[in-house]
Amino acid sequence: MEEKIRTHGVLFAKHFSARLDTVRLRTGRTTERIKIDHPEAAAVVPFLDDKRILMVRQWRYAIGRETLEIPAGKVDPGEETERCAFRELQEETGYKAERLLQLFSYYPAIGYSNEMIRIYAASGLRILAAEQDADEISRVEVVALSRVQELILQGIIGDGKTVIGISLFLAKQQRGEIPRDFFD
Amino acid sequence: MEEKIRTHGVLFAKHFSARLDTVRLRTGRTTERIKIDHPEAAAVVPFLDDKRILMVRQWRYAIGRETLEIPAGKVDPGEETERCAFRELQEETGYKAERLLQLFSYYPAIGYSNEMIRIYAASGLRILAAEQDADEISRVEVVALSRVQELILQGIIGDGKTVIGISLFLAKQQRGEIPRDFFD
Repeated sequence: MEEKIRTHGVLFAKHFSARLDTVRLRTGRTTERIKIDHPEAAAVVPFLDDKRILMVRQWRYAIGRETLEIPAGKVDPGEETERCAFRELQEETGYKAERLLQLFSYYPAIGYSNEMIRIYAASGLRILAAEQDADEISRVEVVALSRVQELILQGIIGDGKTVIGISLFLAKQQRGEIPRDFFD
Repeated sequence: MEEKIRTHGVLFAKHFSARLDTVRLRTGRTTERIKIDHPEAAAVVPFLDDKRILMVRQWRYAIGRETLEIPAGKVDPGEETERCAFRELQEETGYKAERLLQLFSYYPAIGYSNEMIRIYAASGLRILAAEQDADEISRVEVVALSRVQELILQGIIGDGKTVIGISLFLAKQQRGEIPRDFFD
């Protein structure tokens, strides 16, 4: 294991923080580690039907460009992750889902962040509002699942949670693990 | 887009940094963003033959436990990403690879990090040293590819780059995009 010796500094944003620690490695040597302390997050692959999903276009400050992704967001304090998935889907797309199916949970950046993302498939969608969270989302798009696969394999979609959400949905579908009535 | 108004603080580790910025959103409102400024990284799915890969067990400070992952690491200043993939494989497993095949490039944590990971498949492995980087790696393991798939689908492997590396290798293999002589 690695043991913290001391913390040199911390940056606090509204919902998470970053800190710089000196740690003792398993060999006894020391090094510095940046660690992001992040709440859990939920991401949703929202199915309009068995062939089309909703995606959002949004500006990503960290990489300085717009991307096409599945809806996602941080869990609020005290909020259940499923609740968060329903809420983020609604805020980012204007659609309400009838049901969620848990697909996968994973650590996106295990080298420096404790963030865990839980990915769900959603179905039984109906539109509630024609507006989305204007601070974050520039456009909601309907994309064929086969097209999303192509965009991933061509390297045009490069957002980790989107790649994992689609890949794991397809793997589970191939194994017969998506319930038959999921798209009813 | 989102525009930086000012930086409130920066943490510097040896190879990357974290900073806290106030930014103006597309609506004109302002918010705070933590951004990790990270070099590119390389990850490798190292094939001993067409059915077995090498994996490494290592302690992950950010999540406080040991994990089973594919070898990976940050690109050194001025280093080419392929060179880094060969080097990290050798440092972490003691094996040298004859060839690399680029599988996929993606952003693991697009919400707060500019890190891009390039994932390769490696083959033509031969052992050079029975020792690994003792600071980071506690054990090298030989795992059947089918077993890795099971561990992912059971939720036991939860490291994003490992999930994406295996999923994209299998997707490309299904589409006939892995050259026939790759395992020779």
